Amino acid sequence: MNGLLTDLYQLTMAAGYVQAGKARQSATFELFLRHLPPDRNYVVAAGLAQAVEYLLGFGFTGEEIDYLRGLPQFSRAPAEFFEALRGLRFTGDVFAVPEGTPIFAGEPILTVRAPLIEAQIPETYLLATIGFQTMVATKAARMVEAAAGRPVVEFGTRRAHSPEAGVLAGRAGYIGGCIGTSNTLTGLRYGVPVFGTAAHSWVQSFASETESFRELQKLLGTATVYLVDTYDTLEGTRRAAALGAPLWGVRLDSGNLAELSRAARAILDRAGLRDARIMVSGDLNEYKILEMSKERLPIDSYGVGTELATSGDAPRISVVYKIVELEDGGARRYTLKLSEEKETLPGAKQVFRYADHDLLGRADECPGAEPQALLAPVIVDGELVAPLPDAHAARAHAAECREKLPTAYRSLFTATPPYRVEHSQALRSLYDETRRAVRR
Amino acid sequence: MNGLLTDLYQLTMAAGYVQAGKARQSATFELFLRHLPPDRNYVVAAGLAQAVEYLLGFGFTGEEIDYLRGLPQFSRAPAEFFEALRGLRFTGDVFAVPEGTPIFAGEPILTVRAPLIEAQIPETYLLATIGFQTMVATKAARMVEAAAGRPVVEFGTRRAHSPEAGVLAGRAGYIGGCIGTSNTLTGLRYGVPVFGTAAHSWVQSFASETESFRELQKLLGTATVYLVDTYDTLEGTRRAAALGAPLWGVRLDSGNLAELSRAARAILDRAGLRDARIMVSGDLNEYKILEMSKERLPIDSYGVGTELATSGDAPRISVVYKIVELEDGGARRYTLKLSEEKETLPGAKQVFRYADHDLLGRADECPGAEPQALLAPVIVDGELVAPLPDAHAARAHAAECREKLPTAYRSLFTATPPYRVEHSQALRSLYDETRRAVRR
Repeated sequence: MNGLLTDLYQLTMAAGYVQAGKARQSATFELFLRHLPPDRNYVVAAGLAQAVEYLLGFGFTGEEIDYLRGLPQFSRAPAEFFEALRGLRFTGDVFAVPEGTPIFAGEPILTVRAPLIEAQIPETYLLATIGFQTMVATKAARMVEAAAGRPVVEFGTRRAHSPEAGVLAGRAGYIGGCIGTSNTLTGLRYGVPVFGTAAHSWVQSFASETESFRELQKLLGTATVYLVDTYDTLEGTRRAAALGAPLWGVRLDSGNLAELSRAARAILDRAGLRDARIMVSGDLNEYKILEMSKERLPIDSYGVGTELATSGDAPRISVVYKIVELEDGGARRYTLKLSEEKETLPGAKQVFRYADHDLLGRADECPGAEPQALLAPVIVDGELVAPLPDAHAARAHAAECREKLPTAYRSLFTATPPYRVEHSQALRSLYDETRRAVRR
Repeated sequence: MNGLLTDLYQLTMAAGYVQAGKARQSATFELFLRHLPPDRNYVVAAGLAQAVEYLLGFGFTGEEIDYLRGLPQFSRAPAEFFEALRGLRFTGDVFAVPEGTPIFAGEPILTVRAPLIEAQIPETYLLATIGFQTMVATKAARMVEAAAGRPVVEFGTRRAHSPEAGVLAGRAGYIGGCIGTSNTLTGLRYGVPVFGTAAHSWVQSFASETESFRELQKLLGTATVYLVDTYDTLEGTRRAAALGAPLWGVRLDSGNLAELSRAARAILDRAGLRDARIMVSGDLNEYKILEMSKERLPIDSYGVGTELATSGDAPRISVVYKIVELEDGGARRYTLKLSEEKETLPGAKQVFRYADHDLLGRADECPGAEPQALLAPVIVDGELVAPLPDAHAARAHAAECREKLPTAYRSLFTATPPYRVEHSQALRSLYDETRRAVRR
């Protein structure tokens, strides 16, 4: 149901649409980024599966409607409004780019065409779920890029913005290129591979570190990762090495990871454990990982938590959901916004992707055979067109798209000039016409 | 249930505790902040209600246990582990500070004393829910401080890290001092007052701005807030003013809010609408609000979204959950961690609050009549001691505590010296003894 998980103004507007006889007018809204987050040359679209799940289950319970009826904001609302909520389902159409697709500013990630009331109320939920997962998938892609082939595991749930955010961060991180997550529910819900062995409390719960290591080895065998920094990283590494095989390796979680990784490597090698691996963690981000990659440190794997699950350097994304056209009294009207620095372009759009640039055009344009149209129908008349690709498919799609991106845009730093996104002649004409026509 | 909403390593450790015969050893873990976030002189504790709800419902479904059984990490786990999960409930004790209480680095917000397996698995969830709400309540308190008596409304769900994070941000923002939220589900679930009127799409869905305003006034009467910047802020304000009473006022959402608020005020006054109010919004944070307060702008109310729901300048909080003591083989053993910059103090603790400083002592200390002990039992033997204060009570408590804080620590900037948190002689002795005794 989840109808109430929205901003109240979506519901006062809904009541107003009913009052004004506009609730069933067909409207088109687009969800897009106003601008790219700092240092990003693209974002990785993610969250469509949760958006679709929400729309297919959209509605209001009797309790929810009763709650609204009791609010002062609805004291003058027409009785038809509450009636309309009672039977409300999403009966419209959704077009979207597949999860994992690189997207640039101004390009619709998702388009909703539905009766005005059905298109308006979902705004808040759609923004929150697509915005968050897109932000995290993007951050993950940067970490993976920096790791230059070494695996990156997501384990940020504890610092995510609520437990549920952690579950979704695990999913989005996987789509962005992580090999898996520590979040076990993400594993069950979305089939994402899960990782994890032991924390400091494990070591501390035993009278000696060696005893804790021995017990872990018994449990995990070749999957054993010793967390070695509870008391002293290198001493811990020596104790782990002394136990010999089987083991996967050791994890370093504090201190100077460059120095410690070299020293730990030497300890493991001297013990004849050349196949034992070294994982590092501890407030890592893409910039630190890039430095480690450049230094060619003996690091086999990265664990990233807080910085990934919160997109630490860019914890917000300028995702918006704007009305672009409307059937009003039998005529189609295009809409735009002229607010300072928040202008929008009218009319339903399509993104056409060429090898080295995009063309943002009108939805009904057909600019020739070459370019790929990114937005495809996902829901038609309230029904799912076909099962969506799962997280594995989305991750593979993201990896493939990343390979195709011109190298400059895969950088962790802002490329100049930015990736080229042109506006079609038809779109520019529509903007000029609409701007002239807008009757304030 | 929610047992699986945790890091996998909590579960591998749990299996290991069963394997080692340690699962039922009584352990004490403390949840605290390693250090305060930048520019913060304190944090506002929040999220206890959700933590308690989780612990009271804690457990595993058959499907969840089957999923774990199929994971490679559990291929060597003893059968008793899966048996243990099947009947697992939280049977331990929880001590906590009331929601709304100002807290400083190193002070336990929550203490869990339970059989090791029951205390270990909840770590991830507890950190995520208390960490996030504490972060947002703290950010809200800063906004409210900056607004100097003018109301602040939270409306950040669209940019929150997932829809559910938005629901909790609305709750935490209210505890921190906001007058309410835009999130309607927060209103229903937690009784938080809800606010909201109309967005740009409302204005755009009508052929003229005036028509959209008239229709809104009909719906909302004296609660009408006109969003005036869709096309031109002052033109919009004039159109709103032309409609006369009833109205609440106007909302300015873009452009130079200082200039526009003055100009809008003049327009409203000239129209005889001296009681009409001005709300401002648009990427506001405590620093911008403080500037506006200092300039004595004609602003009656602030709407804050992204910056609040994501704690924009400090989107992470260094909350950790550490084992501090354990009953091992009939003897009590105190635990600490010596990792670089991540040291912990052994033994269960209590926070004693004096008028101008805190004393961090051992849980069984009694330093005299004056100081208030902040941690109180919330769950005993798995049962709730008494209903927790609701969000209203927590908000009132936060406001009262803020009033009592020495002024220097209510600043938006780092106070020097920081608020004084002393360690008791007994705690210092325990640290020295434990450090000497720790057998690695």
